[in-house]
Amino acid sequence: MRELTVDLGERSYPIYIGEGLLEEASVYFAKHGISKKSPLMIITDEQVAGRHLAALEKSLKDGGFSVVSEVVEAGESSKSLAMLGMLVGKALEAGLDRNSAIVALGGGVVGDLAGFVAASYMRGVKFVQVPTTILAHDSSVGGKVAVNHPLAKNIIGAFHQPELVLYDLRTLQTLPPREVSAGLSEVVKHGLIWDADFVDWCETNAEKLLALDPDSIGHALYKGSSVKAAVVSQDERENDLRAILNLGHTIGHALEAVAGYGELLHGEAISIGMIGSAKLGLRYGAPEDVYTTTKRVLSACGLPVRLPEHYDVDSIMDAMMHDKKFKEGTMVFVVPTAIGKVDIVKDVPVAWVREIVEQLKQEAELQ
Amino acid sequence: MRELTVDLGERSYPIYIGEGLLEEASVYFAKHGISKKSPLMIITDEQVAGRHLAALEKSLKDGGFSVVSEVVEAGESSKSLAMLGMLVGKALEAGLDRNSAIVALGGGVVGDLAGFVAASYMRGVKFVQVPTTILAHDSSVGGKVAVNHPLAKNIIGAFHQPELVLYDLRTLQTLPPREVSAGLSEVVKHGLIWDADFVDWCETNAEKLLALDPDSIGHALYKGSSVKAAVVSQDERENDLRAILNLGHTIGHALEAVAGYGELLHGEAISIGMIGSAKLGLRYGAPEDVYTTTKRVLSACGLPVRLPEHYDVDSIMDAMMHDKKFKEGTMVFVVPTAIGKVDIVKDVPVAWVREIVEQLKQEAELQ
Ligand SMILES: NC(=O)c1ccc[n+]([C@@H]2O[C@H](COP(=O)([O-])OP(=O)(O)OC[C@H]3O[C@@H](n4cnc5c(N)ncnc54)[C@H](O)[C@@H]3O)[C@@H](O)[C@H]2O)c1
Ligand SMILES: NC(=O)c1ccc[n+]([C@@H]2O[C@H](COP(=O)([O-])OP(=O)(O)OC[C@H]3O[C@@H](n4cnc5c(N)ncnc54)[C@H](O)[C@@H]3O)[C@@H](O)[C@H]2O)c1
Ligand SMILES: [Zn+2]
Ligand SMILES: [Zn+2]
Repeated sequence: MRELTVDLGERSYPIYIGEGLLEEASVYFAKHGISKKSPLMIITDEQVAGRHLAALEKSLKDGGFSVVSEVVEAGESSKSLAMLGMLVGKALEAGLDRNSAIVALGGGVVGDLAGFVAASYMRGVKFVQVPTTILAHDSSVGGKVAVNHPLAKNIIGAFHQPELVLYDLRTLQTLPPREVSAGLSEVVKHGLIWDADFVDWCETNAEKLLALDPDSIGHALYKGSSVKAAVVSQDERENDLRAILNLGHTIGHALEAVAGYGELLHGEAISIGMIGSAKLGLRYGAPEDVYTTTKRVLSACGLPVRLPEHYDVDSIMDAMMHDKKFKEGTMVFVVPTAIGKVDIVKDVPVAWVREIVEQLKQEAELQ
Repeated sequence: MRELTVDLGERSYPIYIGEGLLEEASVYFAKHGISKKSPLMIITDEQVAGRHLAALEKSLKDGGFSVVSEVVEAGESSKSLAMLGMLVGKALEAGLDRNSAIVALGGGVVGDLAGFVAASYMRGVKFVQVPTTILAHDSSVGGKVAVNHPLAKNIIGAFHQPELVLYDLRTLQTLPPREVSAGLSEVVKHGLIWDADFVDWCETNAEKLLALDPDSIGHALYKGSSVKAAVVSQDERENDLRAILNLGHTIGHALEAVAGYGELLHGEAISIGMIGSAKLGLRYGAPEDVYTTTKRVLSACGLPVRLPEHYDVDSIMDAMMHDKKFKEGTMVFVVPTAIGKVDIVKDVPVAWVREIVEQLKQEAELQ
């Protein structure tokens, strides 16, 4: 079992990473002050419910908790105001009160949605994350919760920290392989912005990671979460430092915006985005290995490193110009200066970005 | 001009109360760090828009602010998730960014709605309150913002403090007389829980208050806001002390729930509720003047002190049992012990409350 603390003063909380934690959930919940008198609500999606809900419910009920569960459709479309309203109605009907907790069992979609329910129900109740995807090592740290608006992703939300995060590695065994790679993309990102040795380790251990070897994946989640925790501890409300977490995301978000439905997972889009950022790094004088290492480690994790031919560069550029990270007309980019180090560059010429997006189509796959 | 500070550490903010502040809005906005580079959005309702929006827009535009305005329907039904979604869409279209501010121009409805937009747009942007009702001296202090769910009022919300509150007494001149009285109900409440001298002052000056004499109303808003500010400073997140602000609200909310549409304003309902609380005080041994003074001052402010005959006691009791202030089966009430002093009583027998609600129908109006 691995444990780390996200250090946020009185809002600090622990992340437990290990095998079989679902079965012991009631012990951890009780230890961290979740009430047995007030009902708690598990929010999960239909993919996860069939695989892991029963185990969590059983542990909590056996431990004396009063549990209701709500299952939403899997996928981004559940992160909506309509779903928030529906879940608040269910919470009221089930008698959740100010001492109740909302529990997210699932990936980032369920975490973001359930987290915003917890942030806004009765102006805030307790929140517990039980992540079931690799990507969720990212989304479960930092307290950013949100739903989408038809015009923009994650635009309606809050900062709401959980009481604890309970990461049962066994739940990952049922993840589709493509989701495994996509999740590793954010793991690698955390290395690229903070820790060159860890990037090295990821490349060496990529096969074990893809095979979900428990010790390797446990280490990767521990290291990835630790980097995220270190960054958000220093900048809880996303004023400055936290921006480095957006490595690869400016291009990545634009790719997601123009991609057809289901064509690119978030982790895949930012993998291509991180290749773009590495190329931008070279323009700003970073050593060649910023690019070569980034490309090798992402390829080793089974991630795409080039832009499929049919993507339209104009549409990508349009999507990027609406990205909220363009502050007052200037184009902001997270740019690597070495493996494990990045800078925020506030005046990247749009023409450079366009050239790089074009080059991403020509990028050769690694053999 | 009167000024007071709501003392909440780094979230402290000033309340300015005076005549003609709308015309000087740009000065106050600039002084308190509202950005001229990012667009700000004024949210108001159609009643207020026709009377006061032009003055605020002119002052801000002349002062160099970039302003967009959104007008919602007047009334409680605008406090909805659907309206939140609509306003977020407008904010996105108008290009509001993380440095933008949301400005509430109106009463408590607009304040609560705009405040929740500000709390959740991009996970929180700046917020300014420009109250135009007397009741809003209450709703604009303390940072509670929310929208309603079909099953419960104010159930989806946040704590989000404004940067400043700008109270232009001239806007109150257009308030319908019934709204004036209803607003005074919360002013009196602040006296009843905290300050016997101020209760006395309210009774003596009731006629001037009803006539909206600027100096009297300015003083009343200053004192009322000061009490609220003192309470929330000591208990920002509503853990204990803040509960005293609910004097009259347990019965009052039940009356609102069973009343026909438009039959009872919030201030009217809690006026009757405060009479009920005073009667409960007598049962717990408070001196007789707790009841007589409460009744005299509320009557003097033009407020109802008895329950109209057609109200059904069973329905009122049912509505009360669902009130969220009943914690774990026990019935909690704010009970006066003297004028200017209250206690939280956690085990009030339901039978007593029922008797008191029945008596409220028999209550004689003061001559
Ligand atoms: N809050 C943050 O800081 C933050 C950070 C990054 C991403 N996000 C958000 O996270 C979301 C993406 O997260 P995600 O990739 O975890 O998506 P997700 O929650 O949609 O999960 C991906 C898919 O895997 C399925 N799934 C989840 N766990 C499973 C399991 N154990 N076995 C089988 N199937 C399983 C889900 O049903 C879904 O179909 C996005 O909405 C993004 O905006 C938030
Ligand atoms: N956040 C809090 O702490 C808090 C506290 C108390 C009440 N509230 C909320 O406040 C709301 C009630 O506030 P309210 O009584 O101000 O209601 P309101 O905002 O609906 O205003 C009452 C009516 O007066 C009109 N009006 C407002 N200003 C006017 C003016 N200057 N001239 C003419 N007409 C004007 C409005 O259009 C409306 O029709 C409720 O939704 C309640 O839940 C919140
Ligand atoms: Zn990401
Ligand atoms: Zn009230």
